[in-house]
Amino acid sequence: MEKRKVGVLGGGQLGRMLIEAANRLNIQVNVLDIDKSPAKQISSHDGHITGSFKDAKKVKELAESSDVVTVEIEHVDTQMLEEVSKDVVVEPSWNTLRIIKDKFAQKEYLKEHSIAVAESLDLEGKADGDQALRDVGREFGYPFMLKSKTEAYDGKGNFAVMTEEDVPAAIKSLGARPLYAEKWADFKMELAVMVVKTKDGVLTFPTVETVHEDSICKLTYAPPRGVERATQTRAQELAKKAIAAFEGKGVFGVEMFLLKDDSLVVNEIAPRPHNSGHYTIEACKISQYQAHLRAILDIPIVPEGLELIQPSIMLNILGGQTTDSHEKIASLALEKTTASVHLYGKGDARPGRKMGHITLLASTMAEAERQIQPLIDAVDNQKGKPLGPKSIPQEEPLVAVIMGSDSDLPTLRAGLEILTKLDIPFTTRITSAHRTPDWLREFSKNAVNTSVKVIIGAAGGAAHLPGMCASWTTLPVIGVPVKATHLDGVDSLYSMTQMPLGEPVATVGINNSTNGALLAVRILGASDERIRERLRLWMEGNEKEVLRKDKALLDQGWEVYLKGMGK
Amino acid sequence: MEKRKVGVLGGGQLGRMLIEAANRLNIQVNVLDIDKSPAKQISSHDGHITGSFKDAKKVKELAESSDVVTVEIEHVDTQMLEEVSKDVVVEPSWNTLRIIKDKFAQKEYLKEHSIAVAESLDLEGKADGDQALRDVGREFGYPFMLKSKTEAYDGKGNFAVMTEEDVPAAIKSLGARPLYAEKWADFKMELAVMVVKTKDGVLTFPTVETVHEDSICKLTYAPPRGVERATQTRAQELAKKAIAAFEGKGVFGVEMFLLKDDSLVVNEIAPRPHNSGHYTIEACKISQYQAHLRAILDIPIVPEGLELIQPSIMLNILGGQTTDSHEKIASLALEKTTASVHLYGKGDARPGRKMGHITLLASTMAEAERQIQPLIDAVDNQKGKPLGPKSIPQEEPLVAVIMGSDSDLPTLRAGLEILTKLDIPFTTRITSAHRTPDWLREFSKNAVNTSVKVIIGAAGGAAHLPGMCASWTTLPVIGVPVKATHLDGVDSLYSMTQMPLGEPVATVGINNSTNGALLAVRILGASDERIRERLRLWMEGNEKEVLRKDKALLDQGWEVYLKGMGK
Repeated sequence: MEKRKVGVLGGGQLGRMLIEAANRLNIQVNVLDIDKSPAKQISSHDGHITGSFKDAKKVKELAESSDVVTVEIEHVDTQMLEEVSKDVVVEPSWNTLRIIKDKFAQKEYLKEHSIAVAESLDLEGKADGDQALRDVGREFGYPFMLKSKTEAYDGKGNFAVMTEEDVPAAIKSLGARPLYAEKWADFKMELAVMVVKTKDGVLTFPTVETVHEDSICKLTYAPPRGVERATQTRAQELAKKAIAAFEGKGVFGVEMFLLKDDSLVVNEIAPRPHNSGHYTIEACKISQYQAHLRAILDIPIVPEGLELIQPSIMLNILGGQTTDSHEKIASLALEKTTASVHLYGKGDARPGRKMGHITLLASTMAEAERQIQPLIDAVDNQKGKPLGPKSIPQEEPLVAVIMGSDSDLPTLRAGLEILTKLDIPFTTRITSAHRTPDWLREFSKNAVNTSVKVIIGAAGGAAHLPGMCASWTTLPVIGVPVKATHLDGVDSLYSMTQMPLGEPVATVGINNSTNGALLAVRILGASDERIRERLRLWMEGNEKEVLRKDKALLDQGWEVYLKGMGK
Repeated sequence: MEKRKVGVLGGGQLGRMLIEAANRLNIQVNVLDIDKSPAKQISSHDGHITGSFKDAKKVKELAESSDVVTVEIEHVDTQMLEEVSKDVVVEPSWNTLRIIKDKFAQKEYLKEHSIAVAESLDLEGKADGDQALRDVGREFGYPFMLKSKTEAYDGKGNFAVMTEEDVPAAIKSLGARPLYAEKWADFKMELAVMVVKTKDGVLTFPTVETVHEDSICKLTYAPPRGVERATQTRAQELAKKAIAAFEGKGVFGVEMFLLKDDSLVVNEIAPRPHNSGHYTIEACKISQYQAHLRAILDIPIVPEGLELIQPSIMLNILGGQTTDSHEKIASLALEKTTASVHLYGKGDARPGRKMGHITLLASTMAEAERQIQPLIDAVDNQKGKPLGPKSIPQEEPLVAVIMGSDSDLPTLRAGLEILTKLDIPFTTRITSAHRTPDWLREFSKNAVNTSVKVIIGAAGGAAHLPGMCASWTTLPVIGVPVKATHLDGVDSLYSMTQMPLGEPVATVGINNSTNGALLAVRILGASDERIRERLRLWMEGNEKEVLRKDKALLDQGWEVYLKGMGK
């Protein structure tokens, strides 16, 4: 189908996963790297080049045997790429690679293009490094980050200067390299977005949360936990804008900080597939690797292919204390979970080396967290980290039961028992439409951003609670009218059913919290076969119970039966 | 992690996809086949053997360099496998392969183990073939199937004897081979189940519908369209029982007929990954290929890993009239859909040769059908089939609106308009609890087996409709009380809300079909973000409209405003 050959500088794990995607489409990829590198192991043809991706001569050789040249790493000879770009397509552009491979130049470029980045100061060429760093400390305050402009990845080339006393150690560690300093980002969370730049425009994958440990990516969560949809969209927009500023085609990783004030700044850009996009292999219909191939070969991308199929968590498998400690984690994942395991076929498992990764999908993020926890524990254990108090993630509630007053709680008991029996996680809150209108508004507006899918509101008298809640949410709201002091609950029943056009309340019988709960279960079951099956079995049990009673009544006659009832 | 080497007889597309799975786990697979066969293209190491998988010497060579030997095709030398099995693990057992590779022996074996199969008659060794076939015709009636016991696949080795006149042609076509005859299976649908036999037991993937054309698999649908859950489970149980009867480990494909009387018979078994299981690569967390590796290497399988993530359709890409006609279908799939494309790296695209396949996932089967239709059209066009009247699949209804009488329809109009406006597919039915109780029962019991996720029932007076419906389904049922001749609709309101413990009706206001419809949208939106977003925008529009009126009232004053209202 695609007859053009792709040449790639570098044959590590990113190259390997790129080739996995190319193999499916029967596209030939020529790899420039040492023999038996991870990428070459899964690609058998005579177009590969043996050598270093930093060797200009070899890059030329690769270019001569390929139609489109790309990279799996940015620390390459961009002079040679500039030269060969006269004869062969280079994507992304050598110019983009040149800017991005120098992290300080990258930041300056982004600033010029009005992209928010962390504040930074150039330190290259300063005669007295020690003095220069103390000057930075005075300007930025401590801590600040000292960073190498080039050849920095996975924590290598970064030094966190916590206090003035760290200055000599920082100089000792990085002094020989071209340096810059960066203001400490006081972030709530790190986010990342994979961006695809095609001939037609810029597309994005979903926003993910990344968790780093020792400056190496440990986990990604897609979608990010507890982050509002609007913030996720803002992150996608920022990433899109940042990448639109660069020349060339392909996928780009954009790492960002979500600051305490909810603003976003770009941290770093990678002009290639990225660790924070590994999850796309299973969690999206088009992976970042396939997207990269499509972008550089001008094969169109249907944007829906980049959407999330299910929530997913990616966990890196690093080399550990022993040569096989990473293999134990992979085995555990295979034996105990439904996760996908990727092993890169690398040689020695040096501590901290990326040996593989695991991606786990589940129908909810809470479920994914619960399933992956033993693997995170194993990783922490591998690192010699004390496990500390077990923090098994709580099952996140699917139903929120709200009541105007704790006096409604006894009426709700039967419903809560049904939810417990049918294994539906729920939360109970007190929020009165009249006494805490602001809290009800806040709760109702935010519910859609949580795991909650159905709300049950119980109230007596004027019973505005479920109706007001429904006015502030798009989730289904069930109303349980509670029989208060007067009017036998009919007041509440009318208040709930007779909502104006636009904001329905799903009303059940007076005081009938059982039916309120069962309606919530039916609503959840409409899209979850397992829940529906649990409900079906429960209903079957009820049916059998009534049939049993019928038989007893028939067998015993009504008089004996009544006696058995104590009547 | 896994240090043992797997040897595989055959390096076609099944071997290639097996290696794709092995590459991810960094497991070495040695392939016995010609050089540059599809499987070898994606596996670069010096353990492969060049030659034919039918060559006993080569099989021995493969066995000597592998720890576990398996097959991607059953037409192999089982004598040699029996011999090498003394020194190396062979999975599945050579004995199982020997039985299964002879289709008649396979059927006899299944019958002995009480597995339902189509009736068949041995024809091998009959001196007068012509007479023997006419005898079959007398016993089974016409049409019947004439089949080669061995070396039959993708329609090769099969002949449908439609009338007695076909007998000479049948003899001419297959006479030289060992034959048997099979009674014509008058089936509603063909189903298939991939089964995994491990050291611990037998697991199954979901049941799929298969569609054959010219005796070659064209499409698979997972789950099968319009087949009850219970039937799907029966198919899985039958497949499980059939495979449990054989020795050895690995995945097995079980093809079945679903007959007109809803009974199931086994058609054919494959002792290896199978075309009907390709969909598992994307649609399940563990693919049939990974499952095969796990089974033969005793790596445990968490059964949930075999469940369906989303409905999926697999479409085979066959060689066509021209050498590149199959490539056009692959390109179309990439350009216009979110489907995954697999190209096998085969040489010549002979008509009917399996060159690749496409798997398309969507949140509903109807959606998947709509998305894949242009590709099926392209395949039919490639085959020179006239496209005929366009049969674009209808969007299947998510909401069923039922009413006791057409006199309720005017009340429902506003709700139906809202569903239309918010792009929710629905169906409307008339079913009266009192005049058509059996039809209501049938409708309600079957609803859960359809695409419907929410039912809206409108009724006046005694208004038993939604309550009775709720008693026969686990789906959420919304009640719209209709104001009838007396009691102002309060009678219906009470009848719907005051359901007994166990069968709730989500009741909205009297005559308020708008709110009934909006509640259905909220319920669907609880698990579908796109629907929720449509609802949010609609509510935002309503909000703006009220704010606009408020401003007009403020600007104009109440008197002018009233005049504008014509009052």
